[in-house]
Amino acid sequence: MGSATRVTIGGLADRLGLSKASVSYALNGQPGVSEETRRRVLGLAEELGWHPSSSARALSRARSDAIGIVLRRDPALLGTEPYYMSLLAGVEAELAESGQALLLRMIGSANGQDLAAYRRWSAERRVDGVMLFDLTVGDPRPALLDELGLAFVLHGNDEALAPGRVLLYDASGDARILVEHLHALGHRRILHLQGPAEFEHERDRAAAIARFAAGLGMQAASEPSDYSMEAGERIATAHAADPLLTAMVTSNDLLALGAQAGLSRAGRDDIALVSWDDSLICRLGSRPLTALARFPEEQGRRATRMLLDELAGVETPVRTARASELVVRSTSVRAAA
Amino acid sequence: MGSATRVTIGGLADRLGLSKASVSYALNGQPGVSEETRRRVLGLAEELGWHPSSSARALSRARSDAIGIVLRRDPALLGTEPYYMSLLAGVEAELAESGQALLLRMIGSANGQDLAAYRRWSAERRVDGVMLFDLTVGDPRPALLDELGLAFVLHGNDEALAPGRVLLYDASGDARILVEHLHALGHRRILHLQGPAEFEHERDRAAAIARFAAGLGMQAASEPSDYSMEAGERIATAHAADPLLTAMVTSNDLLALGAQAGLSRAGRDDIALVSWDDSLICRLGSRPLTALARFPEEQGRRATRMLLDELAGVETPVRTARASELVVRSTSVRAAA
Repeated sequence: MGSATRVTIGGLADRLGLSKASVSYALNGQPGVSEETRRRVLGLAEELGWHPSSSARALSRARSDAIGIVLRRDPALLGTEPYYMSLLAGVEAELAESGQALLLRMIGSANGQDLAAYRRWSAERRVDGVMLFDLTVGDPRPALLDELGLAFVLHGNDEALAPGRVLLYDASGDARILVEHLHALGHRRILHLQGPAEFEHERDRAAAIARFAAGLGMQAASEPSDYSMEAGERIATAHAADPLLTAMVTSNDLLALGAQAGLSRAGRDDIALVSWDDSLICRLGSRPLTALARFPEEQGRRATRMLLDELAGVETPVRTARASELVVRSTSVRAAA
Repeated sequence: MGSATRVTIGGLADRLGLSKASVSYALNGQPGVSEETRRRVLGLAEELGWHPSSSARALSRARSDAIGIVLRRDPALLGTEPYYMSLLAGVEAELAESGQALLLRMIGSANGQDLAAYRRWSAERRVDGVMLFDLTVGDPRPALLDELGLAFVLHGNDEALAPGRVLLYDASGDARILVEHLHALGHRRILHLQGPAEFEHERDRAAAIARFAAGLGMQAASEPSDYSMEAGERIATAHAADPLLTAMVTSNDLLALGAQAGLSRAGRDDIALVSWDDSLICRLGSRPLTALARFPEEQGRRATRMLLDELAGVETPVRTARASELVVRSTSVRAAA
């Protein structure tokens, strides 16, 4: 593998006397190597001009004209969760324009089936590259994909997860918008209904909510859930009797819809409610929901464009997600004086 | 291809002195053969015990553990149209249980890209079989797939489209439920906002609405659209000034939502409005929409099960779609006396 003029992970490993896995961990910001090693790897990689598309895969792989996604989501949620459908719609729109297909596999959770799928897809050349969503804390996928020589782009909020291959969004900026909005309405305590705590972005959201709240002298707590309407209703109902609670943030629109139903039944329409995702369902109710428009279709398009550019070996113009915008609706109620 | 004990399309063609294409047309209820020829083919096929899985593909094909879908839909609609999201969720749920992946390609319309995709997928053994939705009038796909020896199941309302390989739903029964409901509410004229007229099921829906309406002494007209909310709003607005119009049926929920907005703005909330699809968005508005629950997730599951059983060469237990159920909500208003 590799030629004299191309810098590969194997080449870096040889020069540094490290294993390929260690080099990949270092390049992908994964645990498993010391900071000293990471610095050495990144230093040499920069010096030699290593970048993802210079790896051997670009040379050796016949094109399959398909890209792959393994989604760690309950398929039943897909039918109701607008965020993922819009994201996939964006992916499909971009692929359709270039005549490519999407190989889609859904698994209930991060149980190793996804890693097995990548190994098989790579061995059988079923896809030219993959896209990663919903990174978990310490996610093993970027390093595995590098070992396999399979191109990827991930949607994440930390460039260090895989330098040069992240469609970067600003979870912290999103949290700031939401917290400052509630603060301006007079709220001093926030309950955050988050998604599954193993997701990187959910951990980062909870941390950012806590940080911005503290900075404004507010209290905040986060409670994990499975993103479902039922969980939103259950958690909101459980907290509805708390007279000090005046504001809730939910990590998606289904949670918000469920929470709204629970609060409404408990006679607590005075509680402000803000969703981290916007969609048609936020706009339809008798009390439309304030929500953060995050443009999932556009993010799906951008991530796909990045991956196709990477596969074509051309510079990609856009590496950041479209910035979120708050859409204020009926649930942005002021705190009682 | 073929062995002494298996009945293939080629074998039937040889015995009958016909081309393989003619045999395939006859087996799939396609035009292009005379009724006499069709009878001869079906007679011999039955006599020899031909059925889809006895074709050569079951013997010759290495398993890819993927099935394919080419959707003739604008990807942008996918993000908002609950019916397809739920259908795909059902497909994914069934595939996930058997560790299979979905190869998904979206094309804007029936422009031949779908046929090219099937040819390629077959030649490269990228999928073990495909599922067909949204059949058009005179759809060339079933015959092509037989020529390619690629297994398929289609979701349709006419068993003759591909005997033994149709997950059968009852478009006529659906139309009857809707028309009788509006008749019982005193309505005597129906405007039907349909989807694209080239779809088989939309043609059948319009015909069935007209038939049942006539049987009850009612008037009915159908107007085609692209299934979008914008079209629903536009068409409803254009008809809102007609004092004789008292009831509308829309072929999906997005059309209904758009129509509701248009009628509401025109001060015509007195017009009854019934959607052919039910989903979360029908339940959320201040005037929830009466809708026909068609259980797309369950249909996706059943179609997938049929295809997987076909590929495994086992008898499949269920070949009919779950029956639709009318969910009566606020828009089932009575006609003014």
